[in-house]
Amino acid sequence: MQKGAIGMRPVYIFSVAAAATVAVGLFMSAAPMPANDGAPRYDAAGRLVFPADYRDWVFLSSGLDMSYIEDQPPAGVHIFNNVFVPREAYAAFLRNGVWPDKTVLLTEHRVGATNLSILKHGQIQTTNIVGFEAHVKDTRFKGNWAFYGFGNGQATAGEIPHGSDCYSCHQDHAAADTTFVQFYPTLLPVATALKTLSPSYLSETATPTSK
Amino acid sequence: MQKGAIGMRPVYIFSVAAAATVAVGLFMSAAPMPANDGAPRYDAAGRLVFPADYRDWVFLSSGLDMSYIEDQPPAGVHIFNNVFVPREAYAAFLRNGVWPDKTVLLTEHRVGATNLSILKHGQIQTTNIVGFEAHVKDTRFKGNWAFYGFGNGQATAGEIPHGSDCYSCHQDHAAADTTFVQFYPTLLPVATALKTLSPSYLSETATPTSK
Repeated sequence: MQKGAIGMRPVYIFSVAAAATVAVGLFMSAAPMPANDGAPRYDAAGRLVFPADYRDWVFLSSGLDMSYIEDQPPAGVHIFNNVFVPREAYAAFLRNGVWPDKTVLLTEHRVGATNLSILKHGQIQTTNIVGFEAHVKDTRFKGNWAFYGFGNGQATAGEIPHGSDCYSCHQDHAAADTTFVQFYPTLLPVATALKTLSPSYLSETATPTSK
Repeated sequence: MQKGAIGMRPVYIFSVAAAATVAVGLFMSAAPMPANDGAPRYDAAGRLVFPADYRDWVFLSSGLDMSYIEDQPPAGVHIFNNVFVPREAYAAFLRNGVWPDKTVLLTEHRVGATNLSILKHGQIQTTNIVGFEAHVKDTRFKGNWAFYGFGNGQATAGEIPHGSDCYSCHQDHAAADTTFVQFYPTLLPVATALKTLSPSYLSETATPTSK
């Protein structure tokens, strides 16, 4: 069994790789919707409701074929992950260097392609979405954070159990407020200036002062 | 002399490759700004004013190491291009499948990196920006469109001459309204549904009906 990691879920790459081999269909939630505060919504059972207007949020960054383990990712499968956060939460991070309560960071995993149209090299993003992850800051959770995974078109999701690797990995390696601000280029300078980088991140990136 | 193309300018890769070898410094214009109509602004000399609030616009897509020519891109240099468009223009495209007059599409070229923090594979985006391109729809121009290039921190730019390859390439290969909507996954279905795909694009992507 191959281990894989895209984003927060250590086994997520299984479904990504499998899903990438088939057409997943078009995802049509891109229409700008009325502004709201971007706070997480839960259904009566406490499941997170997928934030369908996320493409109207602030774009944090996009990575390609990201993996946190040494094993090579599967050949021939290319996945972009685009990260978005509600505008109010983004503005609050710019002021404080941490996220406000009720912040949702939403990662969209989208299949890449090359040799499409006149493209000869490199990767562009296609209409095929293979899934989403949400990272929610909310005082309702143990430790004030929870993770969720959504398949494309899935309306609600239950919390990923708090013993999962995503929680400890974010706690141990994320640059600011348990989020991977080291991969969000407009926010890393903010957290640096406001001195909200985590001790563990600073320790990992410290320049040795002696041999 | 190596030919290269990132985005619209056939020789742009020269400056990208050169700039990518040095730290370009931080770009701090990411703060959300008051909403405006996103229309292009020109100075008294007719030069386009850089739209400093572009990260507050709608994210269209991100590509990595895109090139339109057969030659291999330079080894070891990775560039993401993130494309943004004003919210009002995006909403108009959703309705009409074409851009309204006074639309600016802004491409940000940002240096990628791997082996950063806990990343073992793939590419993430760094704080180093190597430049920008703008594609402006405005009846003031011959053919109603013009292209511009900006270095990082450059406040204004003059129009790229209309005989340049970017104009003919967009005219001949762009999927809708002279823009590469085939690389913007939330808009391709819109242009398809609204039947605004260009005849040349439809011809290039047509499935042969006979051998």
